[in-house]
Amino acid sequence: MNIRSYTFEEYVDRVKSFHGFAAPGVVIGGFMVELAYQHLPEGGLFNVVCETAKCLPDAIQLLTPCTTGNGWLRVINIGRFALSLYDKSGGEGVRVSLDPALLEAWPEIKNWFFRLKPKREQDHGLLMEQIRKSGASICAIQKVRIAPDFLERKRRGKIGVCPECEEAYPLADGLVCLGCAVKIPYADRRGILRSVGAVDEGRP
Amino acid sequence: MNIRSYTFEEYVDRVKSFHGFAAPGVVIGGFMVELAYQHLPEGGLFNVVCETAKCLPDAIQLLTPCTTGNGWLRVINIGRFALSLYDKSGGEGVRVSLDPALLEAWPEIKNWFFRLKPKREQDHGLLMEQIRKSGASICAIQKVRIAPDFLERKRRGKIGVCPECEEAYPLADGLVCLGCAVKIPYADRRGILRSVGAVDEGRP
Repeated sequence: MNIRSYTFEEYVDRVKSFHGFAAPGVVIGGFMVELAYQHLPEGGLFNVVCETAKCLPDAIQLLTPCTTGNGWLRVINIGRFALSLYDKSGGEGVRVSLDPALLEAWPEIKNWFFRLKPKREQDHGLLMEQIRKSGASICAIQKVRIAPDFLERKRRGKIGVCPECEEAYPLADGLVCLGCAVKIPYADRRGILRSVGAVDEGRP
Repeated sequence: MNIRSYTFEEYVDRVKSFHGFAAPGVVIGGFMVELAYQHLPEGGLFNVVCETAKCLPDAIQLLTPCTTGNGWLRVINIGRFALSLYDKSGGEGVRVSLDPALLEAWPEIKNWFFRLKPKREQDHGLLMEQIRKSGASICAIQKVRIAPDFLERKRRGKIGVCPECEEAYPLADGLVCLGCAVKIPYADRRGILRSVGAVDEGRP
């Protein structure tokens, strides 16, 4: 079974190059995206919501036009290994998830998915072989309709300059930017170099 | 000025292919990532935190080993056009942001960045030309230290099966998975097809 325009081996190579290694979750994710497309009208443009931040977003970014930065992929980290492709106007689409009940036939996938064995005791070769053989047969697929309030495109409001950090921010966020309001994720920020090489310590 | 191993034109082509179009924010983001690397030890491995979900994450995913799915990139959407590359053990790194004060010399970038003109009145050709010419000169760079609690790697806890949806989820999330607890983002989920083509309407 091919994964979009790729053979299994070609897809695994793309995973290694983008994700850094042949992560089982990204490889399984490839079959999940392929399964979703098989149940959608050909040539359609779909947005994606991904229910986990782990691995699966990279399968989506490799195989669909949707990325984190273009906003067509949204990750809502609710801890389920599932994704939905949907029409952004009406919200109709399909959801593909990994079905735990179907993993009984594939013990090494089950060990990995439920973390039943420490990583060092997992057999990566056997795991990849079971993933290749099982393909999308370990997945469930459902019709879904995305909730209207999730579909709603946020209005892009006015941009201003934060009086505290002097950087641009959406004025709707408040009197100062959220970075200054909550201070995360920095313990320390200092030593502004205005441009390459030009040191300017004058700013707080 | 090159952007990592790419010429400006090569990088813009990569942006089109991954992001879908030559978005100004992803192109500027290329110079920002390049500037960050110039101020970091060569050959080091760095994680990235990105302070906006718009555009910038894709520059990071194109030019660093960090992706949404492998966890080395984290997006905290605090609305600032900035990113930090840091050493994941100690948290030391550099932060690159777009400096509003430096945009005075580049009116078309300023128009785009502060949304001073409706999109249809923007001159895309002039904007790209100003981005190419300005390069990283519109950026500020600072030394940063990421806060220890942000660096902390969350322990990967036990995985169980949610009694409501029968899917796998992190047991630490509660008695049911977060998807069942909060019900987002779906208005409707039905018609489970167990595997390709095999209809099973028996599950709720």
